[in-house]
Amino acid sequence: MSNKHCDIAIIGGGPAGLSAGLYAARGLVNTVIFEKQMTGGQIVTTEWVENYPAFPEGVAGVELGGLMTTQAEKFGAQIELFVTVTKLTKQDDGNFELQTDAGDTWTARAVVLASGSVPSKLGIPGEDYYTGRGVSWCATCDAGFFKEKIVAVIGGGDAALEEALFLAKFASKVYLVHRRDEFRASPIVVQRVKASEKIELVLSAVPVEIEGDGTRVTGLRIASTKDESEQVLNLDGVFEFVGTNPVNELVADLVDTSAERGHVSIEIDGSIAGIPGLFAAGDLTNSSLKQVISAAGSGATAAFSALKYLDELE
Amino acid sequence: MSNKHCDIAIIGGGPAGLSAGLYAARGLVNTVIFEKQMTGGQIVTTEWVENYPAFPEGVAGVELGGLMTTQAEKFGAQIELFVTVTKLTKQDDGNFELQTDAGDTWTARAVVLASGSVPSKLGIPGEDYYTGRGVSWCATCDAGFFKEKIVAVIGGGDAALEEALFLAKFASKVYLVHRRDEFRASPIVVQRVKASEKIELVLSAVPVEIEGDGTRVTGLRIASTKDESEQVLNLDGVFEFVGTNPVNELVADLVDTSAERGHVSIEIDGSIAGIPGLFAAGDLTNSSLKQVISAAGSGATAAFSALKYLDELE
Repeated sequence: MSNKHCDIAIIGGGPAGLSAGLYAARGLVNTVIFEKQMTGGQIVTTEWVENYPAFPEGVAGVELGGLMTTQAEKFGAQIELFVTVTKLTKQDDGNFELQTDAGDTWTARAVVLASGSVPSKLGIPGEDYYTGRGVSWCATCDAGFFKEKIVAVIGGGDAALEEALFLAKFASKVYLVHRRDEFRASPIVVQRVKASEKIELVLSAVPVEIEGDGTRVTGLRIASTKDESEQVLNLDGVFEFVGTNPVNELVADLVDTSAERGHVSIEIDGSIAGIPGLFAAGDLTNSSLKQVISAAGSGATAAFSALKYLDELE
Repeated sequence: MSNKHCDIAIIGGGPAGLSAGLYAARGLVNTVIFEKQMTGGQIVTTEWVENYPAFPEGVAGVELGGLMTTQAEKFGAQIELFVTVTKLTKQDDGNFELQTDAGDTWTARAVVLASGSVPSKLGIPGEDYYTGRGVSWCATCDAGFFKEKIVAVIGGGDAALEEALFLAKFASKVYLVHRRDEFRASPIVVQRVKASEKIELVLSAVPVEIEGDGTRVTGLRIASTKDESEQVLNLDGVFEFVGTNPVNELVADLVDTSAERGHVSIEIDGSIAGIPGLFAAGDLTNSSLKQVISAAGSGATAAFSALKYLDELE
């Protein structure tokens, strides 16, 4: 247990946090990134990233995370690995206090929130094992791997249906598996899904197990919600769109996240209205695109604004 | 002269436009990027980029631009090189019409504006020749090359003074050259500049020539605005902050840019209020950080929103 201090504390070591760390450290201020697991965030679970600009051949997700980590550290960002910030409060003197599960108390003059989001999981057998081996939460990232293959999309909202339409451009067949017998997505999207020859609706059905050969997904076992009968869909990939959860517990008392389905609303410079010194970036925020490049861009912006904030304090 | 059509037209082939092109093309729509010069934008004139995440060793500006270009083309973006869009209008049917200096007329269902900005120049001898050889418009990009060296900053606004303070962290000495005898920057910034031991004010003076040895900058010749006497400051770098000009001529009739000093105001999803189908990204916009990573992030966001717009049209 000890008391420590930094200028800019960054909570989360995914693309947004690492990019913020790079920019903050290059501003020659004392910068600490707190990451509860490994750095890299969700890309570490992505086999191959094709859409991060300046990597025309693509790059393994884990390598991309590694490169960003190396760069942030090279310019002086300190990374506290496997450390969870358990409490964040703004003090009367304007500084922030962070408590960690390592028992340390940190003070920071400015904070960049980059704790990201986690896709909701189905919680069924096979799901964890086949993550990155056919189970995905990102059609934009992974659709290209399923050209002329068979996939299932799980979910009934706009995200699920839009991603099913996107996947139908690549896959030979898309099962759309939904627990109810109608969709909550916008009518026009439902209309387009119903018009697609490639999409087969599998309604009133819930996934019960993801099956595989030990290397890749080979099927999805589903159960009818009407008569509990089961069947196996033979397929190569399962895309889950049953919601995402921004990791916002830490700021629940500081920030009102009710308007944006749990996301933190930011201004165009990454600041948070009403809380001087607090900034946010990446998937935690109300950004419209949840991708590595937009997360990294917003991380840099938030750090730049945090540096400006520190300059103005002096 | 011919009539051509595309789904998404992207105006400008810098990082914002190339990233938009990558994302639009990956959405499997017909995507054309119009670039009046070479692709890569302002980074092509930057010797070395140290702050684009995932390049820990840095990357030559021209190489970074090349990588982004290759990737956008690989996924199907068509690049119209050395083609200037001379006129952009929204038609009654909702499509946009683009006229080019090649004599072609294009229609596009959506447009992403990514024409960037150009830093204002001094227009003095030596300036063009020594660009990238000691003359720079970006302290954030290039300060690291001037550790323990002598530089001049030209300008008297917030940008000039803030960049002078930033450069003073690296350089051994910073001349701040300003034509007037007082600054128009914020008092607190002026106060900090005056308190800096590394910054020497050179007031009532205008740059008249950038001198060099043929390879690098060696000095800046300045003239007094009071008695026209001249002197040469021996130094290694000249940073010019005498304003930037967003390249907004094309949208002057479509978009009100008066509120943001010529920049195009965008929503968080890259759209432009009141003009369905028109999006913008990068330095042309009112983004707070003008960097490669934030431009690329906003380009991806704008393209993603343009794709969504096209989907909703159908």
